[in-house]
Amino acid sequence: MTIASITGVGMTPFGVHNEPLEEMFADAALAAIDDAGVDHDEIDSLYIGNALGGAIENETHLGPKFVSYLGLSNECPAQRYEDACSSSAIALKEAVRAVQSGCHETVLVSGVERCTPKGTDVDTEHLTKLFASGSHKQYEQPLGMTSASVFALLTKRHMYEHGTNERQLAEVAVKNHANGAKNPRAQFAGEKTVEDVLDSPMISDPFRLLDCCPFSDGAAAAVITNAESAETHTGSSVNIVGLNHMTSTLPLADQETAFSTPVARRAANRAYREASVSPSSVDVAEVHDCFTGAEIMAIEALDFVEEGHGGVATAEGQTQLDGEIPVNPSGGLKAKGHPVGATGIAQIVELTDQLRGNAKNRQVENARTALAHNVGGSAASAVVTIMEAPT
Amino acid sequence: MTIASITGVGMTPFGVHNEPLEEMFADAALAAIDDAGVDHDEIDSLYIGNALGGAIENETHLGPKFVSYLGLSNECPAQRYEDACSSSAIALKEAVRAVQSGCHETVLVSGVERCTPKGTDVDTEHLTKLFASGSHKQYEQPLGMTSASVFALLTKRHMYEHGTNERQLAEVAVKNHANGAKNPRAQFAGEKTVEDVLDSPMISDPFRLLDCCPFSDGAAAAVITNAESAETHTGSSVNIVGLNHMTSTLPLADQETAFSTPVARRAANRAYREASVSPSSVDVAEVHDCFTGAEIMAIEALDFVEEGHGGVATAEGQTQLDGEIPVNPSGGLKAKGHPVGATGIAQIVELTDQLRGNAKNRQVENARTALAHNVGGSAASAVVTIMEAPT
Repeated sequence: MTIASITGVGMTPFGVHNEPLEEMFADAALAAIDDAGVDHDEIDSLYIGNALGGAIENETHLGPKFVSYLGLSNECPAQRYEDACSSSAIALKEAVRAVQSGCHETVLVSGVERCTPKGTDVDTEHLTKLFASGSHKQYEQPLGMTSASVFALLTKRHMYEHGTNERQLAEVAVKNHANGAKNPRAQFAGEKTVEDVLDSPMISDPFRLLDCCPFSDGAAAAVITNAESAETHTGSSVNIVGLNHMTSTLPLADQETAFSTPVARRAANRAYREASVSPSSVDVAEVHDCFTGAEIMAIEALDFVEEGHGGVATAEGQTQLDGEIPVNPSGGLKAKGHPVGATGIAQIVELTDQLRGNAKNRQVENARTALAHNVGGSAASAVVTIMEAPT
Repeated sequence: MTIASITGVGMTPFGVHNEPLEEMFADAALAAIDDAGVDHDEIDSLYIGNALGGAIENETHLGPKFVSYLGLSNECPAQRYEDACSSSAIALKEAVRAVQSGCHETVLVSGVERCTPKGTDVDTEHLTKLFASGSHKQYEQPLGMTSASVFALLTKRHMYEHGTNERQLAEVAVKNHANGAKNPRAQFAGEKTVEDVLDSPMISDPFRLLDCCPFSDGAAAAVITNAESAETHTGSSVNIVGLNHMTSTLPLADQETAFSTPVARRAANRAYREASVSPSSVDVAEVHDCFTGAEIMAIEALDFVEEGHGGVATAEGQTQLDGEIPVNPSGGLKAKGHPVGATGIAQIVELTDQLRGNAKNRQVENARTALAHNVGGSAASAVVTIMEAPT
């Protein structure tokens, strides 16, 4: 099997964007193409992650809209993936499989989303309902189970089972805001204290406003080529050495446990095995911290810390930039922002920067092996990707 | 490269369905699995086509909802494709590539959609707006360019360029209703006359009500395995010998011509080349007749008839069940119905029946080579699939 390499990455800043989705896409995609040093017509196929364009702004069938912006009309197929918050990581998986199998040589994968109330002119209440479309329609949506309340239930039970407390949750937000303050592409520039978090308004117990990621707009893109042709390109390439995607169940009540994300653990175990990498040899990770409690469950599912110890480990600083396993150097979904369908590829952009040594004042020292963890819905879809630095 | 075979197919009747999307899916998927004679746990990955679940009924993240119904939670990844009316043919393409490349051995591909006003409780006017989400948001949607008006513009120009007339358009509807009347899964059971069509109310000049496909609900599924393991299954297998997907441009005004679908021609030419099949050796075809004019442009793009002669050829009966090239024996989108994201796989189900000799009183005699043509939006995405009968 051929090795798939990331040869170029690009992204817009995350925040409020008013331009059409295809213009956000183009900003990210053209930057990735330039970074890779490939010609446009070398792109064999376009993989697009977008979760809510249809529901939020009556915008579907993005393939033709996007290929036009690359000058590839009638030259290239394009397909769009929607799998809630894991949309673009799943697009990445299919793109990587196409390169690994020799089906394609060079492909572009991109995630694009607009979901700020300001960018869309849809009010916050209605957006919250649309985000809940990933919840079970018959058993969860009628009860008002939004993303926040789903993760709140999981976290509340984690607190009961393992003694995790609100101060530990707040430490996740404080760390990620501190990292985001160093990331010019992050939606939030300011730092926060534990007190800021604990004093912020309650959203869904135990989550306060500052435990939650924001509504965001943005796009991210990556050029994937086979490792052989990667050597002929100008971009310093990063190899994808493990990638697994696993799907579990909805509603939440049918899942195996009510205080962890076993589907992410399963995807991680398979990705570790494929990459011949152990959790302790991961140098830096981007994980899906849509809520502070989600990051705690993520670092446990990834075996960075023991099950139940995520809160304590966070409070001890183990996941800080200079900790044993730096998590979310970009600021994560919490501070960098979470344009739903763009998040999976944005994680890859950050980790490519880290592995290339380009992450400036948020650079993790000696980062050689990186891991991305992207989940959809109540962690019913999970994708884990392991990458290695250029040699 | 391994050959990908269709070893099992299943579908619901098309019409009005009130059950949840996952139940429609299960009806089709379990039938396909039984037909193939595979065990559920042999399924390595699930490819889902659905176009409008998010916009129409706030229903996204179908992967986990669907894998649960197969008992495959935590055992199998699932991904959803949305590419307007070509959603499930594109899901098929990715599924076939995964099998051809050896990435997976056995996969399930399914298309599912609910879009009747009765099934959804969304009124017809609002549904029409949602269907227009595949049109260009800035240049077409504000002008009221729905699917009907996009294909009406193309057809009107075809009439101007080639002398195609309304009676020839009506002949498409008459033929497809006659075929649909023989298909127990079709939404419409009755036959229609040219006069019925010409007397029906005008929708978008030159299309009258009976030139247009209906709103429909339904699901279709197919099991794809590599040809080697297909031999060990009970289902009589059909090989996929050519499959191409090509994406062009939106808005319509930017496309190469205003009276044909060059992207479908390009996909067809590549599929013919891959299959080493000429248009004249295709025995039966299912084409995307969302409107009568669309079938005329389809049979020209596929080179079944000369460019501009689609209307004449139809009126001469060349595309009837006993004609030179039988087109839409199932009744097509026109009479069988068009649950948007299910259509691509429903075409495959019909052609598998035809190639197996199971199509009863709509069987095309000696059908050995079959072709499916599925387009999205204003034919800005096109997928052409060529299949061969079991030897």
